[in-house]
Amino acid sequence: MFKLSRLVLLAGLSLSMLAVPAQAQVFPLGDGPWEFDTYSPPQRIKVSVIARGIEHPWGMAFLPDGDVLVAERKGALRLIRDGVLDPQIVSGTPQIAFAQWGGLMDVVLHPQFADNGLVYFTYTKAGEHPEGGEYWTTTALGRGRLNEARTALENVEELLETNGWSDVIGGHGSRLRFAPDGKLFMSSPFRRHPEAPQQPGSHIGKLLRLNDDGSPAADNPFIGNPDYMPEIWSVGHRAIEGMAYHPRTGELWAAEHGPQGGDEVNIVQPTQNYGWPLVSFGRDYSGRPAAALEKPYLEGMVQPLLVWVPSIAPSGMMFYTGEAFPRWQNDLFLGGLMTGRIPGTGHVERVSFNVFGEIKRERLLNDLKQRIRDVQQGPDGLIYVLTEEVDGALLVIEPVAVPAQ
Amino acid sequence: MFKLSRLVLLAGLSLSMLAVPAQAQVFPLGDGPWEFDTYSPPQRIKVSVIARGIEHPWGMAFLPDGDVLVAERKGALRLIRDGVLDPQIVSGTPQIAFAQWGGLMDVVLHPQFADNGLVYFTYTKAGEHPEGGEYWTTTALGRGRLNEARTALENVEELLETNGWSDVIGGHGSRLRFAPDGKLFMSSPFRRHPEAPQQPGSHIGKLLRLNDDGSPAADNPFIGNPDYMPEIWSVGHRAIEGMAYHPRTGELWAAEHGPQGGDEVNIVQPTQNYGWPLVSFGRDYSGRPAAALEKPYLEGMVQPLLVWVPSIAPSGMMFYTGEAFPRWQNDLFLGGLMTGRIPGTGHVERVSFNVFGEIKRERLLNDLKQRIRDVQQGPDGLIYVLTEEVDGALLVIEPVAVPAQ
Repeated sequence: MFKLSRLVLLAGLSLSMLAVPAQAQVFPLGDGPWEFDTYSPPQRIKVSVIARGIEHPWGMAFLPDGDVLVAERKGALRLIRDGVLDPQIVSGTPQIAFAQWGGLMDVVLHPQFADNGLVYFTYTKAGEHPEGGEYWTTTALGRGRLNEARTALENVEELLETNGWSDVIGGHGSRLRFAPDGKLFMSSPFRRHPEAPQQPGSHIGKLLRLNDDGSPAADNPFIGNPDYMPEIWSVGHRAIEGMAYHPRTGELWAAEHGPQGGDEVNIVQPTQNYGWPLVSFGRDYSGRPAAALEKPYLEGMVQPLLVWVPSIAPSGMMFYTGEAFPRWQNDLFLGGLMTGRIPGTGHVERVSFNVFGEIKRERLLNDLKQRIRDVQQGPDGLIYVLTEEVDGALLVIEPVAVPAQ
Repeated sequence: MFKLSRLVLLAGLSLSMLAVPAQAQVFPLGDGPWEFDTYSPPQRIKVSVIARGIEHPWGMAFLPDGDVLVAERKGALRLIRDGVLDPQIVSGTPQIAFAQWGGLMDVVLHPQFADNGLVYFTYTKAGEHPEGGEYWTTTALGRGRLNEARTALENVEELLETNGWSDVIGGHGSRLRFAPDGKLFMSSPFRRHPEAPQQPGSHIGKLLRLNDDGSPAADNPFIGNPDYMPEIWSVGHRAIEGMAYHPRTGELWAAEHGPQGGDEVNIVQPTQNYGWPLVSFGRDYSGRPAAALEKPYLEGMVQPLLVWVPSIAPSGMMFYTGEAFPRWQNDLFLGGLMTGRIPGTGHVERVSFNVFGEIKRERLLNDLKQRIRDVQQGPDGLIYVLTEEVDGALLVIEPVAVPAQ
């Protein structure tokens, strides 16, 4: 039997040796609420704490009535019930290999959740190393049915164990999004593997498209090609940690957590190659260019729609479509974990577009100095933000009316 | 006779129509001093106001004894004498066409200033439009001798009138640096001209290399080529607003103020083409890609060493070589006017390198929310920062010792 506790302990020890100052929580979140001015167009906002004490949250899912499921990295599923964090965890999640670099990640509801109660989640799964090493993990997709009391996941199943097994620490991060047609997109991270994101037989560094039972969708682009894993939609990704459908075009946009100076947003299309690790704007932490090529362009690889240099470490993302902020409609919002691994530099990034392309990027909430893991629009049209901290919090952003001048 | 006042008035009117919120001074500077923590390596700093009430300063030059000449955009040369701003301006500067987009810009001392008292400056010069239009300006280089009382420039001469005449508003910005061999580099801005930065017969969008009398250096790379202006060192620049010599390699580095998302730092070498406007990472303010090409790469054009996406609007820059901050030695510091034209986002950018390349970028002073126009090391080894505001200020950054933990 694999000794999970030993894995976690050893991983923890290793990570403390690798630790950078960025990992410490340097700026505790105050009590709030806070008000900030934002610009282009001018918009005053109020930011309030809904719940706190959520340990390193990774993903969140709004239930139809406004309750929120929140996934903690260490493997606990939490419920914010009537606006209050339930002290009891939602039981039933599988054994999860958690550490600073992985664990329970995203959580989403089935499109027919109101009828079937199904909850999907991605997580890091440990296994026995074939050569006897200490670390051996991959990324998996699970599903369970939330009971009526919202205290437990029942009938929990593993729907997909990816073939991304690796003994390398880090390179995790997996986001889930249901498409309008009911198919499920799951990002499968790069695991710091130098070649696998370009290898068709590996799930590593790919975007996967699944049926709601975790099987490959029958009309996937590489179905029938024996060289490719049948789940693959697109290749050459590093770590997609944000996905959202554009409200007008219906395109799937994905934010990729790159190396230093290599963050990207792409419109992800079937069969396309997004270049990692052959093409990137970024540098690895040694200072060397991260991509194998010296130039940020290669024929046949998709050029990113947006890049960030230096990095913001983009996490969850959404397009805003609500009524509370009419002038932000169709703007893209991304969580930013931090810039250049500098403590206190997390923020929410707002990107606005016109018919030609991007016209503005603005940093929101940067004065709070929190790492931001996810940003989503709630059923009430307000904007909800999850901070990735030991004392993680769910924040809500509301508009503040400013008297006409 | 050209009516300067009318030019300024009309330019002002036009600009107020073009004005974005970014132009307003939204965040007044407090009294200070302030203390901030910086990271990687941890370094606590104290920031104090040396002088304020300097209207839109553009450049500064330290005299050997620590007095500072500061150029105000509107054409006034100011002296900070014994740490106090002299209320009387240094007289003798020529007639300067100033507006929001141009005016008196950089100011530097001759390498033998201690003996000859010579001061060099770049400025926007107005002329009579050949077709009778209202605006007709170019960039010029001037020189004068600072009198002993430091109250006046004497023997003021125009050393070079570039052929960058244009009736387009904006696209100014010119920095000066003396090379170790006594030659003078002057950046000649792009004037928003769609082709001239690639045209060898135009000074527009070029870096120029001059003798100290303003004539082209005899060993310039295009001397003898009748297609090229003899002053040209390198081509395809947009708006170089920062230049510094690397303390170890002796290379000249230049920061280029790009379009949205197109800021660059390059090592500028003779005959090289830096791509503007054919290659850029940026977008123009309409949202369209700014460069003529869709891809940020073209054979034969130099790839930038550093890019910023989104923009920080880099201004003056320096490499730090002092003793006050031993762990910042050889780091690059750039002024940032703002990010994405969002008010309150100016800062000082610190970039550190190892032998492989860039390893870290950090934003300093961003909590002050001031536009930063220049950053220089003073004769005392401290770091001096010029804020580009109506109530512009000269700030000094000192280290604060933190007790060992």
